[in-house]
This record gives sequence, structure tokens and C-alpha cells, in this order.
Amino acid sequence: MASFIKLMNSNELLAQIKLKKSFLCVGLDVDLDKIPSHLLKLEDPIFEFNKQIILATHPYVVAYKPNTAFYEAYGIKGWLALQKTIDFLNQNYPKIFTIADAKRGDIGNTSTRYAKAFFEGLNFDALTVAPYMGSDSVEPFLAFKNKITILLALTSNKGGSDFQNLIVNNEALYLKVIKTALTYKNSEQLMFVVGATRPEFFKEVRELIPNYFLLVPGVGAQGGTIDEVCKYGLTKNVGLLINSTRDIIYASSGLDFAEKAKEKAMELQAKMGGYLSEL
Amino acid sequence: MASFIKLMNSNELLAQIKLKKSFLCVGLDVDLDKIPSHLLKLEDPIFEFNKQIILATHPYVVAYKPNTAFYEAYGIKGWLALQKTIDFLNQNYPKIFTIADAKRGDIGNTSTRYAKAFFEGLNFDALTVAPYMGSDSVEPFLAFKNKITILLALTSNKGGSDFQNLIVNNEALYLKVIKTALTYKNSEQLMFVVGATRPEFFKEVRELIPNYFLLVPGVGAQGGTIDEVCKYGLTKNVGLLINSTRDIIYASSGLDFAEKAKEKAMELQAKMGGYLSEL
Repeated sequence: MASFIKLMNSNELLAQIKLKKSFLCVGLDVDLDKIPSHLLKLEDPIFEFNKQIILATHPYVVAYKPNTAFYEAYGIKGWLALQKTIDFLNQNYPKIFTIADAKRGDIGNTSTRYAKAFFEGLNFDALTVAPYMGSDSVEPFLAFKNKITILLALTSNKGGSDFQNLIVNNEALYLKVIKTALTYKNSEQLMFVVGATRPEFFKEVRELIPNYFLLVPGVGAQGGTIDEVCKYGLTKNVGLLINSTRDIIYASSGLDFAEKAKEKAMELQAKMGGYLSEL
Repeated sequence: MASFIKLMNSNELLAQIKLKKSFLCVGLDVDLDKIPSHLLKLEDPIFEFNKQIILATHPYVVAYKPNTAFYEAYGIKGWLALQKTIDFLNQNYPKIFTIADAKRGDIGNTSTRYAKAFFEGLNFDALTVAPYMGSDSVEPFLAFKNKITILLALTSNKGGSDFQNLIVNNEALYLKVIKTALTYKNSEQLMFVVGATRPEFFKEVRELIPNYFLLVPGVGAQGGTIDEVCKYGLTKNVGLLINSTRDIIYASSGLDFAEKAKEKAMELQAKMGGYLSEL
């Protein structure tokens, strides 16, 4: 358990976005088969990789998002690396927004356990949550004040359309998920995952939730572009966190990986800065 | 990583069900606030509790199902206890079916990471998976041969009806989820979660999937009864795993907790045995 509970709401995130002229989120999905081989000799290559990526990219970044699957795959060693990574972020960059991309969700008292694990134990600012089990699977996360629950709405993968785009009472399920979630207790602490691979959907989402932040995966390696996302998704209060993972953290597999990651993050930040100056 | 990969398919599970005259699954959701206080002095109270529950109940049980939320809530200590629990089961009771109730699901390569964590690293026989992200979030689990993917269809919680019972093309979403999942590659390795709180839904489910195993939570503390579930859900090849958690593992909070858990498991097994003898 962390010795303090970090509290960061969307207003503070917005202040950081304006300060850094960036709404870039970097995914920390560490694959030992992809990181530079010189790191593998170190005691904790996963944490070392993250630390160097963070040190190089943090001026251009407002959020980091480790996906828990990559840590769980390495067992206890992976969980220790995740814990060291979030501790490093909280100690050194307490104004950076941290997201555990864990896509959890279970019945009430069990969701509370997940919330405790990520919001208190690991001290993340936010957690991604799957909506399928409904109100009493989501509200236990929302019960944690000053913590953000990021609900999956429209994901960027091919299979996303299996269910998310099905029509229910004349509207797509993902829109119904958003509408229903707005009725949940403490819904003001919600953000939503809306994938970038089909930016035309942003229009409908924005009509429904003009004032909520969207976490947007799928830019870069998965095919979406920042221009398309901004065209439909940007609001007067920004309302976007665009995630990039592979394009940044695996920009190089050599000794220069952190430097190349920095260049790529700068490039994306510059593009985002252009959109912010127009607001 | 385990030194061998345990492989157990539904035929072997069925053989165990016939041998033990039981289709009882026991949830191992350890809450340090609920377990007997004398265990709290031990080095690893979570594992000790599980070990004693398993030693007392295993003759009447064909499956154990730890819910990962309860372990994650205790951080590294919790993950170590989960690892010791599954190792204890695999070493001593390799014919007992083991389910990680983790409700995972993510895009393709990320789901593969979760699958490796639970099927290889921890060596569980089965994992519960959430369907919202569709085909390429579920198929990576199914790609692991002789491992079982248990897809959430109809859950037993109140919020389940927020989305699962919505009507899509004249049928409930949970039936659409099942139908769609049957088209996934290696779908013969699927089982489905169907909650016991509304047993009338079993009829429709059984018409759709007469030959698949259902994992049924919600019996006991959550309100469903074994009689109702068996009435609608039992098939010639059984096809049911009925889970009970709190009624068994928290049958007593005293020194006699394991003995009381045994009595409760025996009672449920006897009831199940009655149904099996009618097949």
C-alpha cells in the first residue's frame, strides 16, 4: 500500500495539457523480446526500460499507461516492475496522469477489490474498466473519489464491431453503453475509451458527451491519425488523451532507444501543440 | 513459469464429475477480514486458508476458482499466495479443474499475454474472459490447446441486465454473444458463464448450446438454487459446474472453518449426486 493516495482529477490533467501543449499518453507495454538487448543483462530490465523511456519523454507527455497484461505475463517479476514503475512516476512526476490499462470488471464487492489494488495499492490515477457486467460492476470504481474510471466504449480492434456496433433500439451498443454509464453514481469521474481506427464515430460520441475526456488508442501502428481524431474529437476543453505505444517505445531497438522515443514523442507533441493553439 | 503445462479438457472434467458424483466448484476468494483470526499470525494467511479449505473439501469438489481481484488487492503478497495455491492444487490434485476467475480481455497480442500469464505461467486449466472486445480479444485465449476459455454470457449481478439483456435483432445480447463466440476459431474449447439468479434463462441457453459446459455462479449467497439450475441446465453429459464461494469457505469463522466448509461441500455434493444418478 502506498504511503499516500495520489489524487488528480480532470481539471488538473487539463492544466498539464495546457502547460505542456500536449495531450499525449504513452503506453508502457514492455515486451522483453522487443526491448534493446543491452537492457536484458540488468536486474530488472522491464523497469529500466520504462525508467529510461519516462526520463526521455516526460516533457512531451501528460499521461503514461502501462497495460497490465504485459506485466502479468512475467509473473511476480512483472508485478514488481509495474510497482516500481508507478512508484517512480508518482515520486518524480506527480503531475503526470497515470492509467492502469487493466480492463477489469466484476460483481460489486469484487470490483471494489480491483479498485483498491489499482487506486490505493499501486496508486494509479485511473483504471480502464470493461462495461459488460453493468452498473454494480462499474460503480465500485467510481466510488473512489478523485480517481478516474475509463470505461471501454468503442475499442480499436477488429473484433470490437462484433458487439459494440450492434444496433439496440436504433443506436449502436457503444453509444448505449456511454448513455447508461452517464446514469451511474459519480459518473462525472468517468472517461471513455474510443478507438481511433474509425474517426467518423467520434462525431456521434461528441454529441452525446461533449464534456468528457476520451482516451484514444489506435493512433499510429493500429492505423488512426491524430488529424482525424482531432477533427472530430477535440473540444474547447481538449477532451482528448491520444495514446501511442509502439511508435514511441519501440522507435529503435538499439542503444539509442530512449533518444528515438523522445524524438517521436516530440514530433507528436508538436502536432498536438498546433491543434491546442487553435482552441 | 511452471515446469510442465497441465492439460485437462472437458472430457477429463466429465470423468471426474462422474467419479466424485459432484459438479461443485468452490470459489477461493480470500478476504483477510473474513478468515479466522488465528490464521492471521501465520506467514502467508491467504495460502494457509486456501490449503486448509482444499484439504478439507477436495473429495467433494471437481473445480476450484480463485477470483484474481482478491489476490491483486494484496499486491505482490497476494500474487505469491495465488501462485502457491495453484501450485499446491497442481501438485497434489492434478485431476481437479482449476479456473482463474480473472475476466480478462484485450486486443489480440495483449490477450495473448494474459493467456500466457494464466495458462502457462500459473498453469490454470481455464480462465474467465469478458466478451465486449469481440473475436480478436477472445481467440488468443482459444489458441491455447487443451486450455478452456470461459466466456461471460449472463452474469448473476444486478447490473448484468444493463447490457446483457438488451434486444439485438430479436434476441438478447447474451444469446448473441454465445452465438457469435461459437463462430470463433477453436470454439470447442469454450465454456460459458451463466448466472443462477434467473434460472428461466437456462432454457434458451440450453437450446443454443446443448453440449457446452456452463459455469454457474450465484447459487447460495446470491440467491439461486441448485434445484432450479439443474431443472433447466443439466444435460445428459452434465454440462454444469456450479460454483459456491461464501457458503462454503466462510461457513465458520472459527477454528472449525475447514470442518464446516467440508460439511457444506458434502451437503452440496450429496444434492448434486442425486441429480447425477438420475442421468
